Amino acid sequence: MVQHMQRWAMDSLGRSSLRLVEGRVPTPGRGEILIKVSAVSLNYRDKLVIDTGMGIALPFPFTPASDLAGTVAAVGVEVGRFREGDRVISTFKPGWIDGVAPGSAAAPSYATLGGAHQGVLAEYVVLDESCAVAAPASLGDAEASTLPVAGLTAWFALVEAGRLKAGETVVVQGTGGVALFGLQIARAHGAEVIVTSSDDGKLARAAELGATHGVNRKREDWVAAVHRLTGDRGADHILEIAGGAGLGRSLEAAAVGGRISVIGIIEGVEVSGPVFPLMLKGVRIEGILVGHRRALEDLVRAVDATGLKPVIDAEYGFADLAAALDHLDRGPFGKIVVKVA
Amino acid sequence: MVQHMQRWAMDSLGRSSLRLVEGRVPTPGRGEILIKVSAVSLNYRDKLVIDTGMGIALPFPFTPASDLAGTVAAVGVEVGRFREGDRVISTFKPGWIDGVAPGSAAAPSYATLGGAHQGVLAEYVVLDESCAVAAPASLGDAEASTLPVAGLTAWFALVEAGRLKAGETVVVQGTGGVALFGLQIARAHGAEVIVTSSDDGKLARAAELGATHGVNRKREDWVAAVHRLTGDRGADHILEIAGGAGLGRSLEAAAVGGRISVIGIIEGVEVSGPVFPLMLKGVRIEGILVGHRRALEDLVRAVDATGLKPVIDAEYGFADLAAALDHLDRGPFGKIVVKVA
Amino acid sequence: MVQHMQRWAMDSLGRSSLRLVEGRVPTPGRGEILIKVSAVSLNYRDKLVIDTGMGIALPFPFTPASDLAGTVAAVGVEVGRFREGDRVISTFKPGWIDGVAPGSAAAPSYATLGGAHQGVLAEYVVLDESCAVAAPASLGDAEASTLPVAGLTAWFALVEAGRLKAGETVVVQGTGGVALFGLQIARAHGAEVIVTSSDDGKLARAAELGATHGVNRKREDWVAAVHRLTGDRGADHILEIAGGAGLGRSLEAAAVGGRISVIGIIEGVEVSGPVFPLMLKGVRIEGILVGHRRALEDLVRAVDATGLKPVIDAEYGFADLAAALDHLDRGPFGKIVVKVA
Amino acid sequence: MVQHMQRWAMDSLGRSSLRLVEGRVPTPGRGEILIKVSAVSLNYRDKLVIDTGMGIALPFPFTPASDLAGTVAAVGVEVGRFREGDRVISTFKPGWIDGVAPGSAAAPSYATLGGAHQGVLAEYVVLDESCAVAAPASLGDAEASTLPVAGLTAWFALVEAGRLKAGETVVVQGTGGVALFGLQIARAHGAEVIVTSSDDGKLARAAELGATHGVNRKREDWVAAVHRLTGDRGADHILEIAGGAGLGRSLEAAAVGGRISVIGIIEGVEVSGPVFPLMLKGVRIEGILVGHRRALEDLVRAVDATGLKPVIDAEYGFADLAAALDHLDRGPFGKIVVKVA
Repeated sequence: MVQHMQRWAMDSLGRSSLRLVEGRVPTPGRGEILIKVSAVSLNYRDKLVIDTGMGIALPFPFTPASDLAGTVAAVGVEVGRFREGDRVISTFKPGWIDGVAPGSAAAPSYATLGGAHQGVLAEYVVLDESCAVAAPASLGDAEASTLPVAGLTAWFALVEAGRLKAGETVVVQGTGGVALFGLQIARAHGAEVIVTSSDDGKLARAAELGATHGVNRKREDWVAAVHRLTGDRGADHILEIAGGAGLGRSLEAAAVGGRISVIGIIEGVEVSGPVFPLMLKGVRIEGILVGHRRALEDLVRAVDATGLKPVIDAEYGFADLAAALDHLDRGPFGKIVVKVA
Repeated sequence: MVQHMQRWAMDSLGRSSLRLVEGRVPTPGRGEILIKVSAVSLNYRDKLVIDTGMGIALPFPFTPASDLAGTVAAVGVEVGRFREGDRVISTFKPGWIDGVAPGSAAAPSYATLGGAHQGVLAEYVVLDESCAVAAPASLGDAEASTLPVAGLTAWFALVEAGRLKAGETVVVQGTGGVALFGLQIARAHGAEVIVTSSDDGKLARAAELGATHGVNRKREDWVAAVHRLTGDRGADHILEIAGGAGLGRSLEAAAVGGRISVIGIIEGVEVSGPVFPLMLKGVRIEGILVGHRRALEDLVRAVDATGLKPVIDAEYGFADLAAALDHLDRGPFGKIVVKVA
Repeated sequence: MVQHMQRWAMDSLGRSSLRLVEGRVPTPGRGEILIKVSAVSLNYRDKLVIDTGMGIALPFPFTPASDLAGTVAAVGVEVGRFREGDRVISTFKPGWIDGVAPGSAAAPSYATLGGAHQGVLAEYVVLDESCAVAAPASLGDAEASTLPVAGLTAWFALVEAGRLKAGETVVVQGTGGVALFGLQIARAHGAEVIVTSSDDGKLARAAELGATHGVNRKREDWVAAVHRLTGDRGADHILEIAGGAGLGRSLEAAAVGGRISVIGIIEGVEVSGPVFPLMLKGVRIEGILVGHRRALEDLVRAVDATGLKPVIDAEYGFADLAAALDHLDRGPFGKIVVKVA
Repeated sequence: MVQHMQRWAMDSLGRSSLRLVEGRVPTPGRGEILIKVSAVSLNYRDKLVIDTGMGIALPFPFTPASDLAGTVAAVGVEVGRFREGDRVISTFKPGWIDGVAPGSAAAPSYATLGGAHQGVLAEYVVLDESCAVAAPASLGDAEASTLPVAGLTAWFALVEAGRLKAGETVVVQGTGGVALFGLQIARAHGAEVIVTSSDDGKLARAAELGATHGVNRKREDWVAAVHRLTGDRGADHILEIAGGAGLGRSLEAAAVGGRISVIGIIEGVEVSGPVFPLMLKGVRIEGILVGHRRALEDLVRAVDATGLKPVIDAEYGFADLAAALDHLDRGPFGKIVVKVA
């Protein structure tokens, strides 16, 4: 086995400080697994962490990104969940296995891979075995790497928390990674999906993925469109990319008893909206920060059962991280993946 | 039986237009019951409807108020739920029996008694039999009249939607009617209750009702107090009287996985708060507009089973409506009831 | 409009007493609708009612069957849900709108159409408007008539009560009407479906409908097959046709936390099974008696959204009821429908 | 610190093989804690394990019993949940933290303390830190030791799975440990409780604990009594001590939409009951095998919040295990505790 490896690391905040550094391949300790990384999926949050730190106490030299797919290259003692050769994906938030997330009101936990914990943009990564999940057999590594954050966020909002069912109407705002997973997961459950975008080309591609309706926000008030397309019934679920006054429009668009999942996370941003529709319609607004490991395992099974294929806008080589981040800046259609090996 | 009766009515908006008018006792039609009204409980909303109309198309001459307790004086043909002599209370929103409320996204229903439907400040009222519920045997009429809106709102938020359980922490803001019901209902389920108020006297009275802790908002930051009193764990349920930036503080106070029930309803008011704690803690915010008939029946059973006694700050005679409304303006400790007979 | 109509009626129990009788087309009263019946779907239960009465106090002369699709031919006064010309289907259990079913522990309600209430094997039927639901636009009348009992039973078990999600495994026993709806509804939600049957031909037809796996119970132990096909994980949902010791096998086949929906209803039959797997796996067993109107409305929307087409084994003319009942005796693949008009 | 300790151990099945043996106090490894045991609570299951093995591959020499309260005497490296001096109680089923239990359909897990894992009838015990929970501050060690199995089983059935609320009716069969916890937990949530027993003295003691009604099964049909005491409504929750035809009676006693929690676990025993009430009333039957750690933490908080005091019928000295087991044979009123230190 090789002894040396490369990883991306930064000594201070800012994209320009990212360097490919060489080091020894780590050895897995008790309960740990060594993963030969094949693909890393990037999230908008990774960009924020790299550029701003998001207020997190990053462990410098810091390796960014949280979502990997790879193969178990070695196991430490007392490892029971995996064997050498198993294909795995990572989990975003170590320690959140099922049920309620760790943390308290005063100190909610934001300790994740690629944040308070080291990230995964490396040729080899050691994780506690509790922080990995078997990869879906039906997906290649690049596709599999998109599940831990983008896929799970949409799944957790719509399925784990939202208990989506066939015949319901889901509104998906935009065509980013979470949005397209929301579209595909909703369609896999027999729901109707309305996608909003300001780009007809993206709406056309969303239609190919199964979107029931596309609404161009530049040409039409999307709330009025949701009312029209649902016969005034409204949307049962809305995936709300957090921010500003958008919540108010979502409250208007929501059906009686509808749910709004707030899925973006940007420090300093407020949500606000009128109290009248919130109450008259008994709407539920729920903050969604990815999800727990059990739900990721459910998603993996669903992917294998339904043949869902994550949408990758572009793959970049391991050395081309800068170009991948530039693509993130421009707003991809679906996911951006860095191929490591 | 008497042929004539009095009722409060107004021909235009504004408290000064309220008049006691005389009329014939109505006759119940098919499926309807005639109720001899004993007590009417006032809600803050009644004040708003009288003073501003709240944008509702009121049926003038309009009789205000929605919550009665009384006795069935006569039944129409095909009435099956009640018999003459039964003690009953009204339901706030006709047609909402169980499950999801009527209405659509575009036209959510706000058709309630004392609003789009005539109210109950009258000696006799005719209701469809589906709009009444058997009164609890353990309460007198004045107490029973407080359940349909104030009692049910707190019950629906904490129990029907919130699935409250023993050992959880509930924060109740203020000492109004819904707040004190929230306190009592939470205590009846073995929860701990933190009451916030700016009045030490009211906090002392809340303590007598079983409040575990009282926080004087003038002397202490209530969010810091909630963190301290829960060992940083935070509040599992917060009864949020809708309005402005209060939601942001509630988001800080909420436990991981906690719930905030927004229970006030004031047209024009916004809710707003930071997205970061909403997401990190996976908080649920839910608009609560009273509740359905089945939950009111559940509450009646709970009242009889637990001996819960609603808190009435003052009772006024039927002719003293003006004084009762003045008391509402000042902010009662619990409920204001108008004794009709 | 025509003045006379025909209906099937019986003066005493037993198939031989069924007669086509002539009568006047009824007039809808207050809140009622007159339906010109187009199709009536038969259930195994109808056979039991005709042959044995099932202990129900049938209103002789009695018209059997509960599930119709048709068109509103006239409306009574104060009808608000429907207009003349609307396509509708019936609801099985009048008065069960949402939430918990009517009835008590001592006297559970079994008052349904084609039972304690008159049935629908007639050219015209009057129903209270609360007992009908808009038919799905995507289905013809024969197909639509299969939803009220067979379709709703499977939907209620898997979706309303079972909260089925993509990637779960559903076991469907046999290929009768409820079983095939279970197969189709589960597939529409992205679940995997294992069908058990003793007939290879039926298994092949189930595979064409999307069954993931078929198990011939004559050739293989179906529980062992479920373990094998799920990698020992077991079935998340089992549609159990009530009866005898079958429950014990289902308990063995169920996953940890799995659900068994008992959906047949045959007086005198016992369910039994070993307590050990029930407890070790925390299995839930739930009796399902069709479902409420709101869930039927959900199903109608799901049918329109997913394009699900109910499986009709054969259609019979209105006069050929005897042949239709004979087919029911033999065990159809899916549903038997009587075309009325 | 002492170096030697005593523990109960057996080399083969049968009560007569139990011996007090001396050994070295163990040293906690990585992630482990050493507990100085103060009290051990016995369950009926311990008796079965000692006498019959229950088919479990016991690790001989085997120490029985699963429920301890004690104090952390030392911690291994990387322990984060506890510190020396913390008062703790054990969890029954290692690895079940929250959500769905470990195990599969084919191989459901019954690996518990005092079973496939060593038990706790010892002066010192080493546990993985994940297998302990902070003891409630409001209880002494003897009382605290009764929570892990008896307390949690009742809590899990009624609260975690059953979502009990005030005003509901709970039936508790008998006056054993789980039954009395069920009584107390239900009362702490404002529910009414009907206790059945064949012993008037025990019924009187149950009344002192808050039972709303007692039914002597020797003098009255308990199902008829439940119907009578609930005005025919029936019981919302029934704690069913598994076994035989009892389930049939519980199905008769259950309300529409009621729940039956099957809580005993005896290999070889069947549950059976008529399918008619199961379906007509939409009853849920659920196997309950204790519960997960998060629910135990919820119970601890509820105990501290409500002042619930577990009922201990008798305490025995560490050397008097035989007498304690004899008492278990006779059927205690509440719990039997062995005081270790």
